[in-house]
Amino acid sequence: LKPKKKLINSADGCVDEALVGLVRASGGLSLLKGHRVVLRSDLDNLRGKVALLSGGGSGHEPAHGGYVGAGMLSAAVAGGVFASPPPASILAAILSLHNAGASGVLLIVKNYTGDRLNFGLAAEQARNHGVNVDMVIVADDCAFNQPSKAGRRGLCGTIFIHKLAGALAECVGVLIAGTLGVSLSPCSVPGCLPSFELPPGEMELGLGIHGEPGIKRSQVASADEIVKTMIDHITNPDSQSHLSVNSGDSVVVCVNNLGALSCLEMAVVTRATIICLESRGVVVARVMSGSFMTSLEMAGVSLTLMKANLETLRLFDAKTAASAWPNLSSVSVSGRSYMIESQAMSTRPQDGTYSEGPLSPVMRKVLERVCSALLGKQEELNSLDRAAGDGDCGNTHAQAAKAIQEWLRDHVVPGCPGQLLSVLAGLVQEKMGGSSGALYSLFLTAAAGHVTEGRSNAAAWANAMHAGTQAMRRCVAVCPSLDALCPAVDELMKLTKAPPGGEMAVLQNAVEKASSGAESTRDLTARAGRASYIAAERVTLPDPGAVAVAAILKAVLESLKG
Amino acid sequence: LKPKKKLINSADGCVDEALVGLVRASGGLSLLKGHRVVLRSDLDNLRGKVALLSGGGSGHEPAHGGYVGAGMLSAAVAGGVFASPPPASILAAILSLHNAGASGVLLIVKNYTGDRLNFGLAAEQARNHGVNVDMVIVADDCAFNQPSKAGRRGLCGTIFIHKLAGALAECVGVLIAGTLGVSLSPCSVPGCLPSFELPPGEMELGLGIHGEPGIKRSQVASADEIVKTMIDHITNPDSQSHLSVNSGDSVVVCVNNLGALSCLEMAVVTRATIICLESRGVVVARVMSGSFMTSLEMAGVSLTLMKANLETLRLFDAKTAASAWPNLSSVSVSGRSYMIESQAMSTRPQDGTYSEGPLSPVMRKVLERVCSALLGKQEELNSLDRAAGDGDCGNTHAQAAKAIQEWLRDHVVPGCPGQLLSVLAGLVQEKMGGSSGALYSLFLTAAAGHVTEGRSNAAAWANAMHAGTQAMRRCVAVCPSLDALCPAVDELMKLTKAPPGGEMAVLQNAVEKASSGAESTRDLTARAGRASYIAAERVTLPDPGAVAVAAILKAVLESLKG
Repeated sequence: LKPKKKLINSADGCVDEALVGLVRASGGLSLLKGHRVVLRSDLDNLRGKVALLSGGGSGHEPAHGGYVGAGMLSAAVAGGVFASPPPASILAAILSLHNAGASGVLLIVKNYTGDRLNFGLAAEQARNHGVNVDMVIVADDCAFNQPSKAGRRGLCGTIFIHKLAGALAECVGVLIAGTLGVSLSPCSVPGCLPSFELPPGEMELGLGIHGEPGIKRSQVASADEIVKTMIDHITNPDSQSHLSVNSGDSVVVCVNNLGALSCLEMAVVTRATIICLESRGVVVARVMSGSFMTSLEMAGVSLTLMKANLETLRLFDAKTAASAWPNLSSVSVSGRSYMIESQAMSTRPQDGTYSEGPLSPVMRKVLERVCSALLGKQEELNSLDRAAGDGDCGNTHAQAAKAIQEWLRDHVVPGCPGQLLSVLAGLVQEKMGGSSGALYSLFLTAAAGHVTEGRSNAAAWANAMHAGTQAMRRCVAVCPSLDALCPAVDELMKLTKAPPGGEMAVLQNAVEKASSGAESTRDLTARAGRASYIAAERVTLPDPGAVAVAAILKAVLESLKG
Repeated sequence: LKPKKKLINSADGCVDEALVGLVRASGGLSLLKGHRVVLRSDLDNLRGKVALLSGGGSGHEPAHGGYVGAGMLSAAVAGGVFASPPPASILAAILSLHNAGASGVLLIVKNYTGDRLNFGLAAEQARNHGVNVDMVIVADDCAFNQPSKAGRRGLCGTIFIHKLAGALAECVGVLIAGTLGVSLSPCSVPGCLPSFELPPGEMELGLGIHGEPGIKRSQVASADEIVKTMIDHITNPDSQSHLSVNSGDSVVVCVNNLGALSCLEMAVVTRATIICLESRGVVVARVMSGSFMTSLEMAGVSLTLMKANLETLRLFDAKTAASAWPNLSSVSVSGRSYMIESQAMSTRPQDGTYSEGPLSPVMRKVLERVCSALLGKQEELNSLDRAAGDGDCGNTHAQAAKAIQEWLRDHVVPGCPGQLLSVLAGLVQEKMGGSSGALYSLFLTAAAGHVTEGRSNAAAWANAMHAGTQAMRRCVAVCPSLDALCPAVDELMKLTKAPPGGEMAVLQNAVEKASSGAESTRDLTARAGRASYIAAERVTLPDPGAVAVAAILKAVLESLKG
């Protein structure tokens, strides 16, 4: 077994390098030379105020350096990965804040023995230096029904205390916030094996932020069920470490990524949390969702609930320069209407909004001919497609043809050609689907505006075909169908200038250009779509999409000839 | 093989639920009923302005809904996971913005065939509805030296365009930004197997945001080397898709977590990126580091460089309400001084700052006796510790004793007892280490202030012991050493009230209380430290720390008797 691969330079150097990365990327932060201490760069602004200092082991980024900035922490001390920081560095941080003119320094410490000892020792030493220093212990863990004598652990609730600490210095986190986590995977300290193993399909509830064991292992359930279990546990009055949350209460919620959960899953859990709380009559005042107190690359999530009142919300909403604090709105989550009615709209002319005209019978005949041509080519197109694609090109064209045939059985053909093209655009978009459906629909939609009942001569049709082709070109940089379509349309454009009379000859030439264009796709080495990024695959058969386009134009010509 | 476990309710429902999670958690967002469309709630503010619409497949969260808000996007359309959104939803979004009074709608589309087609089709349909609509294609991928005809892919550079789009509507991303990614692991669509496999120890360079193959696989290198390779590639003039970045140029950098990289690794990569660019004379104007354009739970990172000038920086720094935009400072990264000198300080009185006094010989004798007592108990303490701990309690105490013996050989003992206690506090903190070192140091530091050369009678010593014990109690909720120490100190406190004369009798009693207190730890079921959270382990031997405390007090008594 080898340690998990990680994007670092060395296990020894990663903590110091990560601190440099944070501080350099953030305008308002500095490092204390010789220590793993992140400080506000504007220390002068602390004069006469209480400075806030937190910290702890590394591996919980963005905690704690990410919370340093105006409106949150004045400084943060980091230890090694999952190791408490040394008292000498904590003392150096305290003295820096004291020397900057802070009237006192409040230490915000998570309830872990090492942190309590090292911060406590530094506090004693600072007192001997004449510094006014005090310490609050955050203990928001809701996992254990009967916490040990060491008390509840400090978890993600710490960041609420960071935010509110200025005004709540005397209030210990345990009174107002509760946290519980669930994990689908372990994490591993750089250079080490994973801290524990989770059997496939299992999850663990209530574990600590260093991967230390929780209260229960079980099969992974749905997000809704997991969230319900977590909130049940956090608020269970039978547990000594519960947070009392009742109907009518207002809460702030932190949905915290423990490291490697995808942002998609995070959003699913966020929804489940809001809905679960509201179903109990709890008012969700604010939600923050993201990576706030991590356990390296653990795939899991923790929920922190904090009781909210006007004062805590005022403090929560206050501006801060801390780099890890998210861009939050100060609107209440519960009670806010968030669903907008979409206006009824149809891209396709509705039945009854059009009527037949003199062109209707001709257009019906052309369409019927095109449909039977495509159905006749179904197997040929499939076979061509198998050489380079997924072999369903004939099927998708047959689907479109059948949809059009079905529509023709039940509907009159509008006398306005533009209306007919819009109908067809809607049909292929809906029934053909995929890239082909979108491409044909794009062509037909762009063409529709150029042919109307009053303007449907050969020149108008040529302009319509040209507009359709241009729309396709704007959307796809490369498309073999265009190799058949473009030469044909170039030929058709002669209709806009030629004297009347030679239309059928031009159309005949256009169809021939389409056929030779389709043949030329034998030389193509790259195809559109994601496959084109990968490898140039030599295709020696013509492209089925181009062949289909040529077949359609040929059917139109034959129908008009007849 | 089973699909990877994920924290969702169902593969089918996860996209819709994630959108609800995002919108509900964010004050300024709404959903368009019947569509996967996220809209600004304050649509009225769009009246007369150009509205910005983006979108694409899901699985890239927080893209694109997270970028909706004043100052960024007006709306975003989501498709299924890694699937382009349907034209009908794109059209519904365009019409909603148009109906809100927007003077026009600009579509910002990543260069993928499906997105270009579906957004293009919706644009054509919107034009037929009389909407003024335009489209820019983002193509910032630097992976391929010779991009295929489909062109460069749209990657994380998209979010720069979202930010700058208002003023740069006519400018295509390819001109100003370049992106390259590296991955240590695949990702898997909900309900599906991973999209590819990476052999252990290997990484892949240049892959797309759906896990599609990149340009090279190689052994995982150090973060510094990987970043150098990536920046070399992005700026390589031999590649058609390079971004020209030369010495003296100014850039904005996005270090983008592809999903599951730990925040610690992200910070290490951020540092490497800044240093690598600066080593080439490039001015790093801003850095954003976090999850901005993800590939589900892929463990990897992408770097996006954008050329910066005063105007782009002004737009980049402008406020936005978008939930996924980070809390950034507008200070230049390069050129900013970020290292603060820490003041010289010592917690231990320096040689030459104190001199001997009448008490010095007594205190030296006491210390010598304590040291030999601890060295004599080394194996007994180790053996007790093996029952419940890591078996080194005797060794750590012996380390402290040897350090004190060594110090006594080279130094005079200060006449001021407080100064001696401070010296000892420093010695044990440095040489003993761990929790024990911190605990003894805490006790000694807090006690030191209570005994001075002029105030060193029995009552002062009792007060000092009491202060030390209280400091320990503040820092550790549970500590077996206190079970020996506290009853002894309670007894010693009689010295503060008793008439002079009976000091030795009180000390004798205190030592007996310490011994019986140490014996009582046989009943302890939980111990301090992380192990105490896990399981109640029955310990039938006395705690070695408590035994050591009793032994120290006994040695003091015997020395004073002698």
